Amino acid sequence: ADRGRLMVHGEDRPGIVAAVSGLLSNHGANIVSLDQYSTDHSGGRFFQRTEFHLKGFAAQREQLEQELEETLRPLGMSWRLTEAQQLKRVAVFASKMDHCLLDLLWRERRGELGMTTTMVVSNHPDLAEEVRSFGVPFFHVPVTKENKPEAERKQVELVRDNVDVVVLARYMQILTGDFLDNVGVPVINIHHSFLPAFMGANPYLKAKERGVKLIGATAHYVTEDLDEGPIIEQDVERVSHADTVTDLVRKGADVERRVLARAVGWHCEDRVFRDGNSTVVFD
Amino acid sequence: ADRGRLMVHGEDRPGIVAAVSGLLSNHGANIVSLDQYSTDHSGGRFFQRTEFHLKGFAAQREQLEQELEETLRPLGMSWRLTEAQQLKRVAVFASKMDHCLLDLLWRERRGELGMTTTMVVSNHPDLAEEVRSFGVPFFHVPVTKENKPEAERKQVELVRDNVDVVVLARYMQILTGDFLDNVGVPVINIHHSFLPAFMGANPYLKAKERGVKLIGATAHYVTEDLDEGPIIEQDVERVSHADTVTDLVRKGADVERRVLARAVGWHCEDRVFRDGNSTVVFD
Amino acid sequence: ADRGRLMVHGEDRPGIVAAVSGLLSNHGANIVSLDQYSTDHSGGRFFQRTEFHLKGFAAQREQLEQELEETLRPLGMSWRLTEAQQLKRVAVFASKMDHCLLDLLWRERRGELGMTTTMVVSNHPDLAEEVRSFGVPFFHVPVTKENKPEAERKQVELVRDNVDVVVLARYMQILTGDFLDNVGVPVINIHHSFLPAFMGANPYLKAKERGVKLIGATAHYVTEDLDEGPIIEQDVERVSHADTVTDLVRKGADVERRVLARAVGWHCEDRVFRDGNSTVVFD
Amino acid sequence: ADRGRLMVHGEDRPGIVAAVSGLLSNHGANIVSLDQYSTDHSGGRFFQRTEFHLKGFAAQREQLEQELEETLRPLGMSWRLTEAQQLKRVAVFASKMDHCLLDLLWRERRGELGMTTTMVVSNHPDLAEEVRSFGVPFFHVPVTKENKPEAERKQVELVRDNVDVVVLARYMQILTGDFLDNVGVPVINIHHSFLPAFMGANPYLKAKERGVKLIGATAHYVTEDLDEGPIIEQDVERVSHADTVTDLVRKGADVERRVLARAVGWHCEDRVFRDGNSTVVFD
Repeated sequence: ADRGRLMVHGEDRPGIVAAVSGLLSNHGANIVSLDQYSTDHSGGRFFQRTEFHLKGFAAQREQLEQELEETLRPLGMSWRLTEAQQLKRVAVFASKMDHCLLDLLWRERRGELGMTTTMVVSNHPDLAEEVRSFGVPFFHVPVTKENKPEAERKQVELVRDNVDVVVLARYMQILTGDFLDNVGVPVINIHHSFLPAFMGANPYLKAKERGVKLIGATAHYVTEDLDEGPIIEQDVERVSHADTVTDLVRKGADVERRVLARAVGWHCEDRVFRDGNSTVVFD
Repeated sequence: ADRGRLMVHGEDRPGIVAAVSGLLSNHGANIVSLDQYSTDHSGGRFFQRTEFHLKGFAAQREQLEQELEETLRPLGMSWRLTEAQQLKRVAVFASKMDHCLLDLLWRERRGELGMTTTMVVSNHPDLAEEVRSFGVPFFHVPVTKENKPEAERKQVELVRDNVDVVVLARYMQILTGDFLDNVGVPVINIHHSFLPAFMGANPYLKAKERGVKLIGATAHYVTEDLDEGPIIEQDVERVSHADTVTDLVRKGADVERRVLARAVGWHCEDRVFRDGNSTVVFD
Repeated sequence: ADRGRLMVHGEDRPGIVAAVSGLLSNHGANIVSLDQYSTDHSGGRFFQRTEFHLKGFAAQREQLEQELEETLRPLGMSWRLTEAQQLKRVAVFASKMDHCLLDLLWRERRGELGMTTTMVVSNHPDLAEEVRSFGVPFFHVPVTKENKPEAERKQVELVRDNVDVVVLARYMQILTGDFLDNVGVPVINIHHSFLPAFMGANPYLKAKERGVKLIGATAHYVTEDLDEGPIIEQDVERVSHADTVTDLVRKGADVERRVLARAVGWHCEDRVFRDGNSTVVFD
Repeated sequence: ADRGRLMVHGEDRPGIVAAVSGLLSNHGANIVSLDQYSTDHSGGRFFQRTEFHLKGFAAQREQLEQELEETLRPLGMSWRLTEAQQLKRVAVFASKMDHCLLDLLWRERRGELGMTTTMVVSNHPDLAEEVRSFGVPFFHVPVTKENKPEAERKQVELVRDNVDVVVLARYMQILTGDFLDNVGVPVINIHHSFLPAFMGANPYLKAKERGVKLIGATAHYVTEDLDEGPIIEQDVERVSHADTVTDLVRKGADVERRVLARAVGWHCEDRVFRDGNSTVVFD
């Protein structure tokens, strides 16, 4: 409870590191790790993540926040203060595939990732029993072409103010801009990736037909441009001509769950900053 | 000199492995390694690479080839017989960048890759001295919009019947279908790859702007569709937000030379079969 | 049911590939993939894995086996014939850690790995409920210094003739040579690995103190020399100074489950041959 | 010339980041990137690397250094200030193998790694011509059992005060503690690594006999305990049963040059801190 994190970002200007570290120092905080990065030495964007130890953090928090606001607001900086032990509340959206969902639930149970899944929302009922065996509530919200606006309203109702982040664990519905506007928290997605990319339907088949030797996955923040948001993490797995399309899909699933777990863990440890359509990841 | 390789491919039908291995066995050959793969158990394509030891291979070669033709031609099979110690003759095409070219020359000098570079052809004179210090002839064939057909004729003249494969080691000119038709040997290219792909100019800048975490390279056979031929090998290198566009290009160069060397080595050891727009690689 | 696999190995001599493929061909089998490797062209050991399609394989099996014996026995070759769709029966031994065990059970449920877990045997009761939720029998066999011989007899009783392979999924007891002699099937183990190795207790702590940048895992067949049997598969995961010993253990767990799953899958698809204290893996 | 780096380390105590960043800020420096890490929040060791932009850095340097000393000395901190554009002067020690040496020379010529090779020292004359073709002086210092002390004295004479770091690029002689004491600069070595390690002579053969699937390399600072110093970087390459011992050595060479280049680059960019027998690498 004595471990805090401070994230600061904004237009770069001299003196911010000094101001922030001076303020923390005055409160008796000991900085455990600090990562700072500026995109350019003049006119760039500034990003800083500081993890510190401060005896009696909770008691001093309000005072600390007030001083941070007084110091950083005039410098045009955005900031967030979190308690390191405070788990991020996560809503996982899934459909029928279980690999990404189960991997997150397992890792959470092992105490990894700094998250607690407060609910699973699915447009199919298939995974209900599995999810509930982890002690996690499961909500079935069917989605059809007709009821989509209503379904999204229901999803927002479930999620809004109840979670800190939504994770799409192979959720096979496209979320509208309305949903993204109303949900009020970041949304993380995972999808397969190839070098080069294969557009349209059946990318695994197309990859097979081209003799692709690596298949990959990309975890990113969701924006209105489908599969186009800022990338958090990527990885690949080696394949060969002897892999069938089914094998490619299976190996794709392996790399998907690995990449999603890393991306969610980093997000929940406040290691990821969005920077326009890019990211700064202090891993 | 007693080590041979036999490559067979065609429409799959029962009995080919038996026919080939029986024939080799009758000649007293000992099969050292055999890789066989069919794309489907009925109606698929058949690929087989056999490496064998046969005392007095050179003396028996003509006889062996005649029997192979008599056996495999009626089965509709294509085949090639090579001597394992026989280095493939390579023409490397380059422009100004030296990383892929030098890595090939250095590996050749170390006796890797099963190749001998018989000439380097470049549209720029810059690398002449460096190339000649390896004892390799360097030909400067300038290419402009106007002289392109003539330049390609000159390139074909240099290369035709003199080499077994052309390797484009960051050669920055597009080869026409005419060249590919006339050169008479496979052409291998290397280019950068990303997940996802970034179209058009400045892909490294676009990758940077999207927060890409992996940059890759793809080695492939050249077809008339630019950067679209059958893939031989791919690999990636990890990058982060702290990498500038220049860093991405530099790390891209590292992965390019690694991937190209592997692809060329496999090709020269007769490990790669083209299968339509895909490949079968017995690595 | 029409897909078979034939594994042959022994002292290399000319003509074996021809003999085997001729025999299969005579039965009307179509070879789908064939991998053959000899450690040396003269006096080496010979390994061959053939996957073939044969209509009515079951009906012809007995006849096929008789002919194989007549052909291969005189050549001094060992051979095994399996049906590809026939899942290998697996006993998983575990203790308290669940990561490797659960990953195997989950992959089995997805239809990967070519295996069916017929029982889980553990020296601790902790994982009983979790295992049984997969519909798999769980047997608790406590092991103490005093009862070890008796406990191993009980384990052998449970396993013998009931399974095709025993997988140690972080089973924290050393199996005696007696057990290995009596169990009658291969035993696969997974353990952490480092470059370089750190002997004795607390290897993760020692790795941390040396600034190790990669931690790995090794899956191998168990022999009487603890952690010294033939290696089936290995992989690594990148770590940094910012990883605590706990983080190293957690990342170690990730790479352990990945490596064990690959090794077990290859074993169950008959892709692994033991070659003295080494292996030949046709992956 | 306006880009500086400040490295600070010592026993952790609150307020150091604030003190350092305040000092830089007062000089008008803009911090471009800052990495800080403490091994423990109380009683740990503190490490900080700061890269900053400061117009007229050269002119202010002396004043800056005086203030740093006044500020950090009383806090018990060690510190170093460097100019980012200032290349580190490197002496490369080599024997007969050229792969690591040439890779460093190539990368330097391409402007990578932040280093300039001011000399190559070798106990064999073989690589003289190659090295001199890069415009780099080559000194042949033969080493025998008898003349070792004298040879090391000569090496120290060549190197001392002339270079910032010595890189052993497959230098096949063991350096004594005397040499390390007298040379006065860090010494970086590269050697092969396996999971698990294979002791004694012929490790590649032993790896082959055990069926090893990964071979690796480790770059580390040299201490008196041979091959036991703090690790800077490691990587691995995949191998299979089909690789001969010669292939393993060749693939080992590939991973050696990759790992050494990364380690040397990080060292020359002041990214590596020694921490007892471990390292902190801000890559």
